[in-house]
Amino acid sequence: ATEAQAQWVLTATGRSPTNIAVIKYWGKRDEALILPVNDSISVTLDPDHLSATTTVAASPAFPSDRMWLNGKEIALSGGRFQSCLREIRKRARDVEDEKRGIKIKKEDWEKLHVHIASYNNFPTAAGLASSAAGFACLVFTLGKLMNVNEDYGELSSIARQGSGSACRSIYGGFVKWCMGKSDDGSDSMAVQLVDESHWDDLVIIIAVVSSKQKETSSTSGMRDTVETSPLLQYRAQTVVPGRILKMEEAIKNRDFESFARLTCADSNQFHAVCLDTSPPIFYMNDTSHRIISLVEKWNHSEGTPQVYFVPV
Amino acid sequence: ATEAQAQWVLTATGRSPTNIAVIKYWGKRDEALILPVNDSISVTLDPDHLSATTTVAASPAFPSDRMWLNGKEIALSGGRFQSCLREIRKRARDVEDEKRGIKIKKEDWEKLHVHIASYNNFPTAAGLASSAAGFACLVFTLGKLMNVNEDYGELSSIARQGSGSACRSIYGGFVKWCMGKSDDGSDSMAVQLVDESHWDDLVIIIAVVSSKQKETSSTSGMRDTVETSPLLQYRAQTVVPGRILKMEEAIKNRDFESFARLTCADSNQFHAVCLDTSPPIFYMNDTSHRIISLVEKWNHSEGTPQVYFVPV
Repeated sequence: ATEAQAQWVLTATGRSPTNIAVIKYWGKRDEALILPVNDSISVTLDPDHLSATTTVAASPAFPSDRMWLNGKEIALSGGRFQSCLREIRKRARDVEDEKRGIKIKKEDWEKLHVHIASYNNFPTAAGLASSAAGFACLVFTLGKLMNVNEDYGELSSIARQGSGSACRSIYGGFVKWCMGKSDDGSDSMAVQLVDESHWDDLVIIIAVVSSKQKETSSTSGMRDTVETSPLLQYRAQTVVPGRILKMEEAIKNRDFESFARLTCADSNQFHAVCLDTSPPIFYMNDTSHRIISLVEKWNHSEGTPQVYFVPV
Repeated sequence: ATEAQAQWVLTATGRSPTNIAVIKYWGKRDEALILPVNDSISVTLDPDHLSATTTVAASPAFPSDRMWLNGKEIALSGGRFQSCLREIRKRARDVEDEKRGIKIKKEDWEKLHVHIASYNNFPTAAGLASSAAGFACLVFTLGKLMNVNEDYGELSSIARQGSGSACRSIYGGFVKWCMGKSDDGSDSMAVQLVDESHWDDLVIIIAVVSSKQKETSSTSGMRDTVETSPLLQYRAQTVVPGRILKMEEAIKNRDFESFARLTCADSNQFHAVCLDTSPPIFYMNDTSHRIISLVEKWNHSEGTPQVYFVPV
């Protein structure tokens, strides 16, 4: 390679919104592949509001893969980053930029290292699904850089291996993550139920009651719940399947009352299994409690739900 | 009756401690008879610490039954007071005070009215089982006044009709409330597992994180949970029976580690089903959360439980 060739940097930038689950994902049946114990449904936010923006760059001048989150370098050694990088690299195709004289063959991607810079426009690890937006964006943008030709379902399945709920941020609108049955996770992916235009007068208000990092990460919290909560499996196997069907129906019909009731009930049940964990996990504080009580009183006085809550 | 006879007042005074459940009672299968959906186990506190003191008085001069709680008159019209009064009156026997020339025949009790004055030496309706101590004391003291000759099991069954957990405050030590099977509640009563001397180096610390009255009373909270929580019946039918057996074993063997783990797990699960209720019920606040986290960290650093918690 000439000096000029060695110095090129090819980049791609993408933006992915976070998503808020209305039927919650909590608990894995396979830790490494990130396979959940139940289906979940979420609504993807407007990328102008809460989103991750990621730029990925490849260059023969990079001696290793590196990543910066909100300007601070973080280790890429974790299995989750490695899974996403590996799965995208595996599907990389030829890239040619004639003007700049860059030509990358499919097989070259195995030797090319990447630099990744990602920014969240909202608090990280504070319960706002920063890892969902982040991994969806990483997979999407790496895929763009490497000219990957997979459909969104396949990309969602790769994003899932970075962070479970990331698979739902691949799509806009209302999205269902089908837990799948297969041991290798090949059928555990997200599908779009309806796009963002279907229910465009639905307004989502995010009230950040604390921007401190959560005391218990979702990953370790879920593991503790799966290992110690006697109520989790009952929730996953007996309660959630019925709620998924009702939620799909409510979304299809834009039935706000059913949607609101199901969302609140499922959010509460997620917090309930967190409390049923040893040691208990608290994701709500006195401010969350006051907001919920206010919403409940308002809805009660109006007779039908005006507002729903999903403390996250 | 002579003027002198009409003026006599016969009194009796009793004191009953409150009790703290270690396997929780939450949910009724019969509202009127107060029959629970599961067995529960509690430890009765030292009456010198948290207790109700009740004086009951009967006099032909009293035109009606009346009651004062902490110096303030309260209505006796509720079904629960009426149940306890009726059940004790039904079992009243002859009383004679020769010195004072008072002679009450069994059948006279139906016409004699009572005045009841009860004091709690701790906050009322703040989650410290004030109604348990209060109704146990009321039934016990009325029984004394009316010379009732029933055993403690029978008295516990009457106290139960005032407030479910009151049946456990009839005894000291560790007490089990057997839910019973019969529709008329006749087999739903408390039994003493071991008396207060069995485990006398067990220390109970009560940390009052708020002395405000609870926002949701136990009665309406339980009703809401029974009607709306999908997890409650699973808890009552599948989780609690095994915990009851393990708890009885732990108490018998003074096995603090098992006792502490079961107590914390069951307390958390009680709070979990409260959260799983629509609208959700919060009985913990940020201070409770901080105390639990502190206890968990302490126990974790020591390797075995040093302290357990039962947020109530």
